[in-house]
Amino acid sequence: MGKPGSIDGMSKVPVAPPSGFRDFLPSEAAARLALIDRISAIYQSHGFHAISISVLENLSTLQGKGGGSDNEKLIFKVLKRGDELTRARESGGELADLGLRFDLTLPLARYCARFRENLPKPFKVYQIGPVWRADRPQKGRYREFFQCDVDIVGAKEIGAEVDCLSAILEVFVSFGLSDVELHLNDRRLLAALKDEDLNEAQWAEALVSLDKLDRLGRDGVEAELQARLGKVPLGIAQILNAEAGTLTTFAGLHAESTSSLGQILALMQAAGFRARFNPTLVRGQDYYTGTIFEVRHSELAGSLGGGGRYNRLLEIFGGSDVPAFGGSIGFERLVLLLQEQGKLAQAETAPQVFFPLLDEDLRGPVFRLASALREKQLRVDVYPDAAKLKNQFKYADDRKIPFVAILGSEEWKNKQIKVKTMADGSERSLALEPLPDFLVEMERLCSP
Amino acid sequence: MGKPGSIDGMSKVPVAPPSGFRDFLPSEAAARLALIDRISAIYQSHGFHAISISVLENLSTLQGKGGGSDNEKLIFKVLKRGDELTRARESGGELADLGLRFDLTLPLARYCARFRENLPKPFKVYQIGPVWRADRPQKGRYREFFQCDVDIVGAKEIGAEVDCLSAILEVFVSFGLSDVELHLNDRRLLAALKDEDLNEAQWAEALVSLDKLDRLGRDGVEAELQARLGKVPLGIAQILNAEAGTLTTFAGLHAESTSSLGQILALMQAAGFRARFNPTLVRGQDYYTGTIFEVRHSELAGSLGGGGRYNRLLEIFGGSDVPAFGGSIGFERLVLLLQEQGKLAQAETAPQVFFPLLDEDLRGPVFRLASALREKQLRVDVYPDAAKLKNQFKYADDRKIPFVAILGSEEWKNKQIKVKTMADGSERSLALEPLPDFLVEMERLCSP
Repeated sequence: MGKPGSIDGMSKVPVAPPSGFRDFLPSEAAARLALIDRISAIYQSHGFHAISISVLENLSTLQGKGGGSDNEKLIFKVLKRGDELTRARESGGELADLGLRFDLTLPLARYCARFRENLPKPFKVYQIGPVWRADRPQKGRYREFFQCDVDIVGAKEIGAEVDCLSAILEVFVSFGLSDVELHLNDRRLLAALKDEDLNEAQWAEALVSLDKLDRLGRDGVEAELQARLGKVPLGIAQILNAEAGTLTTFAGLHAESTSSLGQILALMQAAGFRARFNPTLVRGQDYYTGTIFEVRHSELAGSLGGGGRYNRLLEIFGGSDVPAFGGSIGFERLVLLLQEQGKLAQAETAPQVFFPLLDEDLRGPVFRLASALREKQLRVDVYPDAAKLKNQFKYADDRKIPFVAILGSEEWKNKQIKVKTMADGSERSLALEPLPDFLVEMERLCSP
Repeated sequence: MGKPGSIDGMSKVPVAPPSGFRDFLPSEAAARLALIDRISAIYQSHGFHAISISVLENLSTLQGKGGGSDNEKLIFKVLKRGDELTRARESGGELADLGLRFDLTLPLARYCARFRENLPKPFKVYQIGPVWRADRPQKGRYREFFQCDVDIVGAKEIGAEVDCLSAILEVFVSFGLSDVELHLNDRRLLAALKDEDLNEAQWAEALVSLDKLDRLGRDGVEAELQARLGKVPLGIAQILNAEAGTLTTFAGLHAESTSSLGQILALMQAAGFRARFNPTLVRGQDYYTGTIFEVRHSELAGSLGGGGRYNRLLEIFGGSDVPAFGGSIGFERLVLLLQEQGKLAQAETAPQVFFPLLDEDLRGPVFRLASALREKQLRVDVYPDAAKLKNQFKYADDRKIPFVAILGSEEWKNKQIKVKTMADGSERSLALEPLPDFLVEMERLCSP
């Protein structure tokens, strides 16, 4: 044999994951799972249902919007297979037929169109899962990252807005992240601000520049607009001047959107959430048709989440008149923020009792005692080999297991077991007969 | 615009997922999540830790075994991007650089090699997640499916075997699937049975034929061996004759494996699990080096899970002398079996209280009441629009929400609310002042 990487060849295969991808150590993985559970519980408490959609989609679905949005350019495409691949290579045709989803919204739109007849109306749904973007990896930006979406499909403003937004903000509040602020705007308002002498494409360009306000500052945005369009459009100037202003500045422009923004703001503020109108908010996706939002934090550039109304997205799948609103929490940024603030809780999944193995002959009794404790709902770990006792205790110590149950030959003969409390090093002898007494005593020891 | 699939063009994009992939309705998704939680809890109770590994790997990692195993041929490959893709197309070189994992074991081996210094020794780990295989889709065989793996890396037989196997069997037992049986064999025993006049490749071929015993029957296997090798090897005949036999038949052949198989069987049987030696068990993966197993059920062809010892797998990542054992529950087959037996529990995630919206003006009070109930840990759903009351009640009915809290203008004026118990249609009026009394009453109603 001796091929590269074969066991016989002994050449090494790199141990790192692909660039931009991550492996999580047990403590990180447990904390992430616990966080997902907590977000799920909050979404459920607001009446949202979990669904699960394949992570691979037909490329035609992912590219279905036909608009060539930024995210579409970042699709990880999956190579065709077999004869189809051969034909594609020979003809110079499309080499891929599938792609990894780049968000959770487009697959949801397909799902809702598919199951139209089977879903509640309106359909309140949440998804927590990974998405993939072939972005240039950099600090804090990964090619695989989690999103936590809530959506209401089949509901007009503003009920869906208030329901989704309060579920999302509730997550931040539940972690004591009270500095979080909701920024709101409306695509219809942005559309109404278009200068008459600009066409739609030029106005879209102007909004792309405006969207960079955080990074470029006002001067930078104005310079880019001069370079691109030869001027700063009046609509953009009005937005930039009103940045700190109130909704009333824009009241005459598009009454429907200023009215719904006003109602949403009032309801969110009455519920105790920090919320403001931000006319400079644009958001990247081209499928938004109304309300758009971002969740921001004073200590972080960019956003902790965002979303908007997408009343026409289902049309690409043949759905008509299906208004929808949804938003997402950026899971990775939330993890980062909670870590920085020391608020990322450790999950309680570590074993409570540890059995070292002192002698191969005692494997049977140790195994049976461990099983009996597990039936009492305790988490119990057994060392698999009769290794050096020092190593076995180090293992228990490293894993922070609070109780070590030591069964030696002498103890077993006397139907006794030694239980060591690792916190203070104290030891006690417990009788193994009758067994129920031992189990109850261990249960008592392990209860908080 | 008017491109295919664009919103303006109005052409439809198909609503089905790619062939071999699935979307799950809310009830299915909730049942799957609840099942994952339950398996996680059992794995944790046995001292296993969760980890999380990227689902994409470098192709070189997935192909690292160099052996061209069956699963390697089924990798979904991810197309290179940008200049690299252009160069690959021009030069006729490899078009892909990444691939979706086809199992959870190979990524785990890379992970353990990478974090060697940071992981407990031995490392007890579980993973529950999707894997992908570009297999021909057929009934019950999907291209994306979940596996539930437990592994112990850094432990010699037989402790790791007993620990993993009891965790896996515990899952089946906890669902009352007592017909489940553990089948055990050892690759070293199979190797020792090789006829002297056959080389390794021929013997491997003979075992591949033996592996089809379930499908082909004894006659079919013998016919295939005649066709492939011109004879039925003596070793295979010995296995086929011993099928119903005991371990002692093989005792002289390879003492180490028959001894460890004997100990594992004794311990598993003493713990009340159904377990037997099965000399015809082969398993597909080429990285197994010792104990191999499958979990089988009398009503199902094929297996519900399986695995084995892979003491040399870490060597391809530069690890040396890292004995390891692990196994997997086939999640999809478990779901199927539980469904058939009516044992797939419904998760308790549906809302407990539903607020219809009778009037836009009451959105504020309804929203506040819902929030207050959520603070009491109740799951509360609010209808987002002031739609026809009939439709709103149908929604509550379809979702099987047990209590409907009706706040009309009249009720609100009198600080009252009507609560309807959907099970018997009975209604009661509750006072909204003082609010804590209302909350406590609702809490009491919703408690089981």
